[in-house]
Amino acid sequence: MHNDLADRSGEVILKEFNDTIDAWLDHGIDWSGLPANLAEAGRYSVLSGGKRLRPVLVLMSCRCVGGQVEQALPAAGALELVHCFSLIHDDLPALDNDLLRRNRPTLHVHSGEAMAILAGDLTLTMAFAELAKADLSAEKRIALVDELARSTTDMVAGQVYDTLGGLPEERSAIEQVQLVHQNKTGALIRCACRMGAICGNAETDTMRALTNYGDAMGLMFQIVDDLIDVTQSAEHVGKATGKDADLGKLTYPEVLGIDACHEQVERLLQEAIEALSPLGNAADDLAVLAKFMAIRTR
Amino acid sequence: MHNDLADRSGEVILKEFNDTIDAWLDHGIDWSGLPANLAEAGRYSVLSGGKRLRPVLVLMSCRCVGGQVEQALPAAGALELVHCFSLIHDDLPALDNDLLRRNRPTLHVHSGEAMAILAGDLTLTMAFAELAKADLSAEKRIALVDELARSTTDMVAGQVYDTLGGLPEERSAIEQVQLVHQNKTGALIRCACRMGAICGNAETDTMRALTNYGDAMGLMFQIVDDLIDVTQSAEHVGKATGKDADLGKLTYPEVLGIDACHEQVERLLQEAIEALSPLGNAADDLAVLAKFMAIRTR
Repeated sequence: MHNDLADRSGEVILKEFNDTIDAWLDHGIDWSGLPANLAEAGRYSVLSGGKRLRPVLVLMSCRCVGGQVEQALPAAGALELVHCFSLIHDDLPALDNDLLRRNRPTLHVHSGEAMAILAGDLTLTMAFAELAKADLSAEKRIALVDELARSTTDMVAGQVYDTLGGLPEERSAIEQVQLVHQNKTGALIRCACRMGAICGNAETDTMRALTNYGDAMGLMFQIVDDLIDVTQSAEHVGKATGKDADLGKLTYPEVLGIDACHEQVERLLQEAIEALSPLGNAADDLAVLAKFMAIRTR
Repeated sequence: MHNDLADRSGEVILKEFNDTIDAWLDHGIDWSGLPANLAEAGRYSVLSGGKRLRPVLVLMSCRCVGGQVEQALPAAGALELVHCFSLIHDDLPALDNDLLRRNRPTLHVHSGEAMAILAGDLTLTMAFAELAKADLSAEKRIALVDELARSTTDMVAGQVYDTLGGLPEERSAIEQVQLVHQNKTGALIRCACRMGAICGNAETDTMRALTNYGDAMGLMFQIVDDLIDVTQSAEHVGKATGKDADLGKLTYPEVLGIDACHEQVERLLQEAIEALSPLGNAADDLAVLAKFMAIRTR
């Protein structure tokens, strides 16, 4: 299987859905009833480009279990709103104090700290408002709310581990860094695959396959991110780099060394691709995307 | 009607439900899976007493349309979680910079600013997680998510109006202060009544009655709050007072004068009580509570 993987690149797959997702974030959401300054701040953050990996995973997961992409669009958009909220708050001076994001000033630089806090609160809340009014059965909508809320809780827990400690002391360094990243990054990537599966009416076995794929992708994504932080320039990446070490954060390269990180990425990539086997050729694009994410440099 | 109002005081009614609500917030929520420092911060804020007006309104509204109080408990708890989130973030240095809340240090004083931001994010998210897993039909759960998410969006908009402007300039000062407060405070109080009505299977007319009651109560609550801010000491109130004027905030006493505020409170109290008439004697306690909230001094 997967013999035709070389026919499509991961970049093409990501771009295939980007316009659809951006259009939904721009026009699918009703920004008009909000205070003008709040809407401007929200739109500044939400419509600032980015890879859109998480919403793309929602749409692809839905399609690969036989669902229509359109059915999964509100779930994809809601997940991206949560991702944007997390970036806005993580960038705040009291947290990572980042000034640059996606090659533009972060929201607190652009709109002030008070607005960044409130616009983050807004985008998080809007995610649930959008799920509630999606054109799906009540059962599906509440399953999506459940999935998204639990994953967001895990993500917040991960951010606490990452910046404020609270890690179980009896665990080893590698277990600790894994716990940080499974929560901080892995939770929403796993959630993306599961939300797509819910929208596409996945059966138990395909849901499990996509969950395992999402778990491997999530951890792999963060290890690659850590490697980029160590090895690339800020100009190339579009946000500050080399900061993790400065902040004394627990990272994979620090705990494992760079070579072992590359091996770990390779292992997780194989895990992600193997997880897809119950899905057959329908999951070929997800395999291509995994390969692309393993070798990305920004 | 309402001849027996004098038999019960509003304080007794509030207290009747307080233990139930506190017990749910303490044990109904699973705090154990979180980082210990995050759980501590969340519990510090959520279990700090307070009137619990919003969750009490949820439970009373459910009961008054014939529902069981137990059915409405997750909705009541979720709404209080959102209220707590809003207090945590509003108190932050970048917003109101308050040091005292419910006679204790605010969360950012107690746990630091980063933790206060993240614990606020957590409590907001947990509200939706709790609704998603409540023992109610999927239709009811998603209706509750919809109601809570839309009201929370309004509340965030109100906080922006209150602290960062963005008010429609063509409106008069009284229209502007009303817009601020209908969003900032009114939205969640109205939401409380409507969430209780949803849990109790309210018909269209009783839903409308409780919505109108909630609208009047919400605005009345904030005018009374503004009056307390002008006239009471911080020690009595349990949080800083006299700050609104210092911060140049738009308040009812400033726009209307104190005497007109008292008249407005009286008018809104009558509106709240009249709104209840379709509900008959079942709404007597809601009328008592309205009277109590009109004359409260903290």
